[in-house]
Amino acid sequence: MKKIVIKFGGTSVGSIEKIINAAKIVKERQLRGEQIIVVVSAMSGVTNDLIKKSKQISKNFSAPELDVLMSSGEQISCSLLAGALINLGVQARSWLGWQIPIYTNSNHVNAQIIEIKVDEITNFISKGGVAVIPGFQGVSGDNRITTLGRGGSDLSAVALAKFFKSDSCEIYTDVEGVLTTDPSINSEAKKIDKISYEEMLEMASLGAKVMQPISVQASMIGNIPINVRSAFSKNSGTIITSQNEIDYKNVVTGVSYSKNDAKVSLVGVVDKPGVAADIFEPLGQNNINIDMVIQNTSSDGKKTDITFTIKREDSNKALDLIEKNKDKLNYNKIIHDDKVAKVSIIGAGMIANPGVTHRMFRSLANEKINILAISTSEIKISVLVQENFTQKAVKILHKEFKLD
Amino acid sequence: MKKIVIKFGGTSVGSIEKIINAAKIVKERQLRGEQIIVVVSAMSGVTNDLIKKSKQISKNFSAPELDVLMSSGEQISCSLLAGALINLGVQARSWLGWQIPIYTNSNHVNAQIIEIKVDEITNFISKGGVAVIPGFQGVSGDNRITTLGRGGSDLSAVALAKFFKSDSCEIYTDVEGVLTTDPSINSEAKKIDKISYEEMLEMASLGAKVMQPISVQASMIGNIPINVRSAFSKNSGTIITSQNEIDYKNVVTGVSYSKNDAKVSLVGVVDKPGVAADIFEPLGQNNINIDMVIQNTSSDGKKTDITFTIKREDSNKALDLIEKNKDKLNYNKIIHDDKVAKVSIIGAGMIANPGVTHRMFRSLANEKINILAISTSEIKISVLVQENFTQKAVKILHKEFKLD
Repeated sequence: MKKIVIKFGGTSVGSIEKIINAAKIVKERQLRGEQIIVVVSAMSGVTNDLIKKSKQISKNFSAPELDVLMSSGEQISCSLLAGALINLGVQARSWLGWQIPIYTNSNHVNAQIIEIKVDEITNFISKGGVAVIPGFQGVSGDNRITTLGRGGSDLSAVALAKFFKSDSCEIYTDVEGVLTTDPSINSEAKKIDKISYEEMLEMASLGAKVMQPISVQASMIGNIPINVRSAFSKNSGTIITSQNEIDYKNVVTGVSYSKNDAKVSLVGVVDKPGVAADIFEPLGQNNINIDMVIQNTSSDGKKTDITFTIKREDSNKALDLIEKNKDKLNYNKIIHDDKVAKVSIIGAGMIANPGVTHRMFRSLANEKINILAISTSEIKISVLVQENFTQKAVKILHKEFKLD
Repeated sequence: MKKIVIKFGGTSVGSIEKIINAAKIVKERQLRGEQIIVVVSAMSGVTNDLIKKSKQISKNFSAPELDVLMSSGEQISCSLLAGALINLGVQARSWLGWQIPIYTNSNHVNAQIIEIKVDEITNFISKGGVAVIPGFQGVSGDNRITTLGRGGSDLSAVALAKFFKSDSCEIYTDVEGVLTTDPSINSEAKKIDKISYEEMLEMASLGAKVMQPISVQASMIGNIPINVRSAFSKNSGTIITSQNEIDYKNVVTGVSYSKNDAKVSLVGVVDKPGVAADIFEPLGQNNINIDMVIQNTSSDGKKTDITFTIKREDSNKALDLIEKNKDKLNYNKIIHDDKVAKVSIIGAGMIANPGVTHRMFRSLANEKINILAISTSEIKISVLVQENFTQKAVKILHKEFKLD
């Protein structure tokens, strides 16, 4: 008998009608003879509302108490869905994090799952029951409620699929699946049928919002294929799985972008060993991630320019740190630009296709889009462009790599 | 060191500002050197909103899941108050029902507390910590969340005071204490300084809304004095305690009324042994409580009239049951009146003052208020009157017994 984990996101249980809809989906799956564990997010808006309340009390609200507070959101949706299933004649019951238990470490607000006890629920679902479990929450070794951080309900689903050795893990959401690009800036966006963990990780990190990178990573580590699909249609959605399960027809799987980058250039830095380390060490020590780096060879062997990108929110902090070290770094001036965007093509297919980089740059050049910086990985090429070219760049690349 | 249980009702934590106010009260008490356990209701309106959601799914929503759902209300207020205390520099933490644990039976939606484990919290508060506990909730022997029924947070406070052997139990609410009568129909209502459990029980059962009868009963059984007071003033409130702690100056302590009664008369019933049993047996079997009963001696020894009162909501059910048994009961006709109200005087002082009944009836008669039925206990006299006389009757009696 097939054992499945089904997760409903916040928008899929965002109202009483949608909760009843979710219950109908679960019932239908059960009638197919599947053993079912359901994971539920908080109804959309609820978690933000709870966080807002905590902030009205203190900007620095106690993390353990914030976990008690936030976990109530999933407790509500979970009991409502269990009640809706019972009302449809399904034998269902809820198990909260501490009842299962889902053990985590004590890292409140951002806890990691250590172990999930499976006996009681295994027994229940093997007798035809449906277990309904709130996502996002666990319990620490000292018996306090913990939560898993943003996107934690997906993490719960992946971890449950792993510990229960389920045959599949399905994420029901409000979109059809993972798309080749953001449909709000390119109406040619198409649903991807299958995507590898690695590609999805790049897509997620680079701005595709359907799943948090940390959940994709967890599914990759556990090799738990995920099916992202719509709670409001019968379509099959997107399968996120290992690369060798995928038959690549396209070189590029998707085009993503992010607009939260900033570019910093140090002009006229002395060109000697160790200078890059001098620049980046204090940034790293202050938790500022460097993304792209460009260093030109100096024409005279004495002075060079170093350009790098960071998250836009880190801009002020980074500039402060650099100015503090002005004497040591010995640069002429700093140029800072927040009006940049990173546009990326992602595809495991590009490993076997060396011409991709060239095609990407050429198609952008043809449209007079200047490339400010480049970074690459085995399955991704990112370029930094002026922010106002974002949409144009995405559309060109989407078309160039036959995703339209 | 004094050990106290402080309970905040829903209106006392009904907004973020009020939660911060409650936290300040707790901090002030702690600075006096008291060991403190705080019990919190859900923010006002939250429980009703959760119940409403469940009813949108099913009129017959699963009781165990309803408990999971409803308990989230107190979980929210409890974590917010704990966070507010921590923000004020108080060493505080929340304990949910299952964390303490507060063990109850498995009677979901209406569970009874069996035992409360005290070691962990005793240790915490003896070191200067403030324990914050959600009212209304517990955990059953099979590790599921239970709730204690309407007014359950008061019950939690009383039970915690009992198991922790606390020196006092204070109920912070939005009124100054227990009043001699309902101020909305008689502006002469005064705060009562001390009232006995028995009197409070009669007041509560007869309509004074400040505490549920079941909580008063629990405090009486455990002999836990309760201090009902306002969260928004410094006044001392009302002490509910045992009768021998009270020095009675007044014969009557309070005047209450209820408007949810209905009167039913069976006219022309055969006057023979067993007829009253024949009438009331089917009602009792259907959970209809009979309150007052009047049976006139028949003038001819053959036929008599029997009048009784029940809760208004039971009227239709009661009339149906009687009509079903018409042949057996053999009455001439039924007279039914929903436009009645019960007005009562309550006072342990009346035990030693036999003239009270007469004074009550005379003062009503002087104002041409007809008495439709009477019931008495040792510390209470209730009369049934036409509903439109309610306010007048309350005012007359309040004045007559020197409560103005």
